[in-house]
Amino acid sequence: MSYTIEQIAHALGATALGDVAVTVTGVREPADATADDLALAMKPEYAQKLSQGSARAALVWDGADWQALGLKAAIVAPRPRYVMSGLSTMFDPGQGWDEGIHPSAVIHETAQLGENVSVGPLAVICAGARIGAGSVIGPQSFVGTDAVLGEQAFLREGARIGARVVIGDRFIAQPNAVVGADGFSYVTPDVSGVERARQSLGDQGDIASQSYVRIHSLGAVRIGDDVEVGAHSAVDRGTIRDTVVGDRTKIDNLVQVGHNCVIGTDCLLCGLVGLAGSVKVGNNVVLAGQVGVADNIFIGDNVIAGGGTKLLSNVPAGRVMLGYPAMKMDTQMEVYKYLRRIKRLFADVADLKKAVSKPDQVD
Amino acid sequence: MSYTIEQIAHALGATALGDVAVTVTGVREPADATADDLALAMKPEYAQKLSQGSARAALVWDGADWQALGLKAAIVAPRPRYVMSGLSTMFDPGQGWDEGIHPSAVIHETAQLGENVSVGPLAVICAGARIGAGSVIGPQSFVGTDAVLGEQAFLREGARIGARVVIGDRFIAQPNAVVGADGFSYVTPDVSGVERARQSLGDQGDIASQSYVRIHSLGAVRIGDDVEVGAHSAVDRGTIRDTVVGDRTKIDNLVQVGHNCVIGTDCLLCGLVGLAGSVKVGNNVVLAGQVGVADNIFIGDNVIAGGGTKLLSNVPAGRVMLGYPAMKMDTQMEVYKYLRRIKRLFADVADLKKAVSKPDQVD
Amino acid sequence: MSYTIEQIAHALGATALGDVAVTVTGVREPADATADDLALAMKPEYAQKLSQGSARAALVWDGADWQALGLKAAIVAPRPRYVMSGLSTMFDPGQGWDEGIHPSAVIHETAQLGENVSVGPLAVICAGARIGAGSVIGPQSFVGTDAVLGEQAFLREGARIGARVVIGDRFIAQPNAVVGADGFSYVTPDVSGVERARQSLGDQGDIASQSYVRIHSLGAVRIGDDVEVGAHSAVDRGTIRDTVVGDRTKIDNLVQVGHNCVIGTDCLLCGLVGLAGSVKVGNNVVLAGQVGVADNIFIGDNVIAGGGTKLLSNVPAGRVMLGYPAMKMDTQMEVYKYLRRIKRLFADVADLKKAVSKPDQVD
Repeated sequence: MSYTIEQIAHALGATALGDVAVTVTGVREPADATADDLALAMKPEYAQKLSQGSARAALVWDGADWQALGLKAAIVAPRPRYVMSGLSTMFDPGQGWDEGIHPSAVIHETAQLGENVSVGPLAVICAGARIGAGSVIGPQSFVGTDAVLGEQAFLREGARIGARVVIGDRFIAQPNAVVGADGFSYVTPDVSGVERARQSLGDQGDIASQSYVRIHSLGAVRIGDDVEVGAHSAVDRGTIRDTVVGDRTKIDNLVQVGHNCVIGTDCLLCGLVGLAGSVKVGNNVVLAGQVGVADNIFIGDNVIAGGGTKLLSNVPAGRVMLGYPAMKMDTQMEVYKYLRRIKRLFADVADLKKAVSKPDQVD
Repeated sequence: MSYTIEQIAHALGATALGDVAVTVTGVREPADATADDLALAMKPEYAQKLSQGSARAALVWDGADWQALGLKAAIVAPRPRYVMSGLSTMFDPGQGWDEGIHPSAVIHETAQLGENVSVGPLAVICAGARIGAGSVIGPQSFVGTDAVLGEQAFLREGARIGARVVIGDRFIAQPNAVVGADGFSYVTPDVSGVERARQSLGDQGDIASQSYVRIHSLGAVRIGDDVEVGAHSAVDRGTIRDTVVGDRTKIDNLVQVGHNCVIGTDCLLCGLVGLAGSVKVGNNVVLAGQVGVADNIFIGDNVIAGGGTKLLSNVPAGRVMLGYPAMKMDTQMEVYKYLRRIKRLFADVADLKKAVSKPDQVD
Repeated sequence: MSYTIEQIAHALGATALGDVAVTVTGVREPADATADDLALAMKPEYAQKLSQGSARAALVWDGADWQALGLKAAIVAPRPRYVMSGLSTMFDPGQGWDEGIHPSAVIHETAQLGENVSVGPLAVICAGARIGAGSVIGPQSFVGTDAVLGEQAFLREGARIGARVVIGDRFIAQPNAVVGADGFSYVTPDVSGVERARQSLGDQGDIASQSYVRIHSLGAVRIGDDVEVGAHSAVDRGTIRDTVVGDRTKIDNLVQVGHNCVIGTDCLLCGLVGLAGSVKVGNNVVLAGQVGVADNIFIGDNVIAGGGTKLLSNVPAGRVMLGYPAMKMDTQMEVYKYLRRIKRLFADVADLKKAVSKPDQVD
């Protein structure tokens, strides 16, 4: 990959300054950059690091005095973090896999592959599966019976798409991602202690040991366009209807999406997030790392939940939540502040008790 | 799959009402149901949705006026959620994999397969492994050296059973489940800061950097009958004795069961639960999503822990626990309530201090 | 495996006592030990259990009266837990896989394998990958394009090493471990609600729904010597520079290490730990199970964080942290103690308010 500064700026819709014919073959942090790299000096604090490297060209913050920084050329963008998307796409070396269908892949004769589909070594594509044009089914990955993948799907090594799962275009599955595991759904012959404890908020009633029987998952998973699922993440099948993930929603590594969940569009679910069964998530929701959501909860549009938040009840649209138990973030931050002073409060109250019972001995 | 209402009710031990010869080929939620589906209207709140669909027959709640709901036939059960188990079993389309042993599977010549065992494409079965009759070893799954699986095991794609693991009958492993990873067990030459901080509850003493050496896992994993392990879950080998999972215990996705754990019968471990090493869990225990249990903790029979609970000390039988730090659920709910009022409390105490120091100026 | 007590003690640098010619073929817990086992009675509380088994020899605690315990021979070590490392190594039966290169493995012609490398059935090694001498590339595992593994790597079944990842010597990957998934990195065209809520600690400002575009991961992962990565753990690629894991750091199961993280040497990351992007972890840090670390946080050397701790701000070297929000462990334990008495505190303040407003009616 080799581009001039002018080509890059043009592709990114950014402004090229200086000797725009300078050619670069990679992008690097300022201190690591060679003369052939575009340095990423997107904030003033990176300015000094430029002198530690040998960059001739850099992506700089709006208003940077790039010539004073010793650069021959610069790319300026009003929101440099945003142009990182296009820039990183241009320079992504990819996985380096061979194109075409590897002879070791096991593809059922009834599976349908679109044009220019690549299938890596030791991948399995089951009966009736349909793979959209331009897709890459990576090494050792799996596409189940009657599953449907849209165009330009990209399955990394070991990703697994279960039977009857339907996925839109431009889907990305990271290594070992699983879509379409069975839901975790069991029932006891009689009302269980859990059912009673939920009703009473803590009392499971008379304890009677029971065994669980399995409720099979008859639904599948339906995923929109431009969705990504991270390494070791799991999206379970629905019980009767499908589990749903909306367009452009991105799921990080080690995320659990339980059966029957319906997730809207443009959401971010970060690492180790867990959604129990039948959670409904609106659009443009962000759940930070290790957030947990109890079953049957509704989360409104544009909700943001900070790292580790446990959502045990419905959350209205637009709320920014934090903590366990979850509260509005500003309230929670205040509670945290008070908790740090709680020892002093106990001492004050002890003093007050003494003072009030013996009002003449206040100290 | 096609059944009459009479056949279904009979199989479920439920009551068929109306035109019991009506035939259905699937089950659906009320609003989605066609004339060929059995609608699931198990609670009065689903009644209205029936009119949005075209169901002729439904599974209804006890006492429902099914004729008034426009149905030709109905199945009534005292606990509809329970009959969902049998019903979903009858209608489960399964994974659609071919029977028999796929030629691409790699099966060691010393492995023993019972009658009617199916082995999917690109599965591996190692030396000395024994697979019970009627088992399905799914595509790309793995059974290690000398591992034993009982009858009717079902390994989904990519499930991995390590060497010498012994599992009972009717085991289910979801995609990419791992049984028999090595325990996470390391030791420093001298007493470590962690060992000292645990003793002192917070003081790690003089800090001396040390490196860890590995303690190998010589034990295996022993799993009872009717156990299920979810996608991306891991049950680690024991150090000397085996890690044990009791009969009928169900493990959801992304669960960690550490080395030497002994889990009783009829437990539910929900998504992202983590058991550190040597945890002992009784029978009929339910750990909700993202519960964590510190190492060497004992959890009594019939304990229930709500979502996100961190159990850092032993829990007596029958307790319903919540929170971090874990308390009895009702106590914790009370603490939560007080926390929401803590700002007011600080203000009250400030007022009191003023009032007490200047008793004539109470406002 | 068969060793005399003398051989074992010699190998461990421990002291052999009694009939040091006694031969053992395994190690067991005291109650389970046969005459051919070395019993592990490393603490006085195991003494009684010895009589339930038939051990002739045991690893005992320093100062144990081994003859009174009915033993013919004993091994004494000042820190028995430490010698468990060497002992478990001696007796580890391993995975029992065949040596050599299995014909079903798919190895690219440009991959370079050192001497005595074994490759299991259905493993994939991509173009340009280099595998150090003595390595074992397990069944169904994966080594990506231009990835480098040092000497004596050991990849369990289904482990996946992505393109361009570079790993030192003696690396261990548990089943389904993933190194080199893409980072979870997205950006919106305009400043997002999350960016604003972080700045304001809770206010996301005017809500404007935006879609995310992907920032590709151009960096790789660089891992030192003697590192282990657990089952279902994920170490993501860096965005520009590499994600780094230092020498001798051990990562348990289901751990997420986000893009750009730099982890020092001799750390332990326990099960279900999550590091968001660009976290910097010093040396000799221990993060217990389910610890979470927010992005861009710095954790100093020798920090210890207890189970479930959420680190949302920088942690100075040597701190022992606990809880959510994280505090110093001793402070947090104190807060927990006060929380358990908070109901009483509210009642006291209510009493005080009554008493102060009607000072003559204190009860």
